[in-house]
Amino acid sequence: MKLLEEKILKDGVIKSGNVLKVDSFLNHQIDVPFIAELGKEFKRLFADQKITKILTIEASGIGIACIAGMYFGVPVVFAKKSSGSNMDKDVYFTQIYSYTHNKVNDVVVSKRFLNVEDKVLIIDDFLANGCALEGLIDLVRQAGAAVQGVGVAVEKGFQGGGDKLRAAGIRVESLAIIDKMDAQSGTIQFR
Amino acid sequence: MKLLEEKILKDGVIKSGNVLKVDSFLNHQIDVPFIAELGKEFKRLFADQKITKILTIEASGIGIACIAGMYFGVPVVFAKKSSGSNMDKDVYFTQIYSYTHNKVNDVVVSKRFLNVEDKVLIIDDFLANGCALEGLIDLVRQAGAAVQGVGVAVEKGFQGGGDKLRAAGIRVESLAIIDKMDAQSGTIQFR
Repeated sequence: MKLLEEKILKDGVIKSGNVLKVDSFLNHQIDVPFIAELGKEFKRLFADQKITKILTIEASGIGIACIAGMYFGVPVVFAKKSSGSNMDKDVYFTQIYSYTHNKVNDVVVSKRFLNVEDKVLIIDDFLANGCALEGLIDLVRQAGAAVQGVGVAVEKGFQGGGDKLRAAGIRVESLAIIDKMDAQSGTIQFR
Repeated sequence: MKLLEEKILKDGVIKSGNVLKVDSFLNHQIDVPFIAELGKEFKRLFADQKITKILTIEASGIGIACIAGMYFGVPVVFAKKSSGSNMDKDVYFTQIYSYTHNKVNDVVVSKRFLNVEDKVLIIDDFLANGCALEGLIDLVRQAGAAVQGVGVAVEKGFQGGGDKLRAAGIRVESLAIIDKMDAQSGTIQFR
């Protein structure tokens, strides 16, 4: 998606360690009118699918998932990273390794919010190694629901997670795929 | 707001310890078309204010804040609960006690996303003792920005946080205020 690639070139900051900071519009400050264009694009890409629910994971997936939800007109469920004191005990459970925080998170979704009739679109802000999405797919499958596809804003193509999911037969639509980036020169090469 | 009161009566579950579960539409599953009506209502209530930015806190505030942001046409900034490894070091910092998780969270907002010219609407899903909102107000004031008001979906009026903020001169608009609730009988009394 040209619009997103241009935004990344304009506002993204490449840091050492293959970190791309897009926190000015995607995952700390959320540029709502801009992200609305991404939401519309997800709706266009998955117009052939009857989506009943969008699934994402806290925290940074929630904004883009809810904005996309405005165009799909369906509920958003966000998987939670730990079991709070008033969290339902009757949950689907998985574990997701976070490279950013170097820890394994227990991730849960209440069984009340995913069921066998659901046709789920999984949305997240970032796709790198694919751990988070694999965990979400696991949760959907535990519920006996169908994964209709995965929609991601920024895929770090060089980390391989997206292609691994595609090879496993998952439809992955990333609005921008970065094949190469270089912190020293500040250059980004899109697929 | 009648619509929200009816939804709480229909789908809310009162648990012992003054816990109201509204996770089927507000803070685990987000009923996007329904929450859109709340977003519209915030826009109507604060139509007299020139809002430049919405501030909320991860995770459960993000959905309602972003949906409201669609009607205000402004960016949403969400305060983060801990300093991730690729988090900006140049942040406004406060501490917020969470009764739900019985811990003090370090909460930050990058200085790049709040400044003296901002007229901020703070939005959150819940208001009980007011700790989270006091922390967010602190962050706005550190930036020298103006708090134009606070918009909350559900206020537990009997916990006093809302009235404390109002007494301090903050404009607080809660779409439903619960003055009393009883787990045994399952009754809720709205203000």
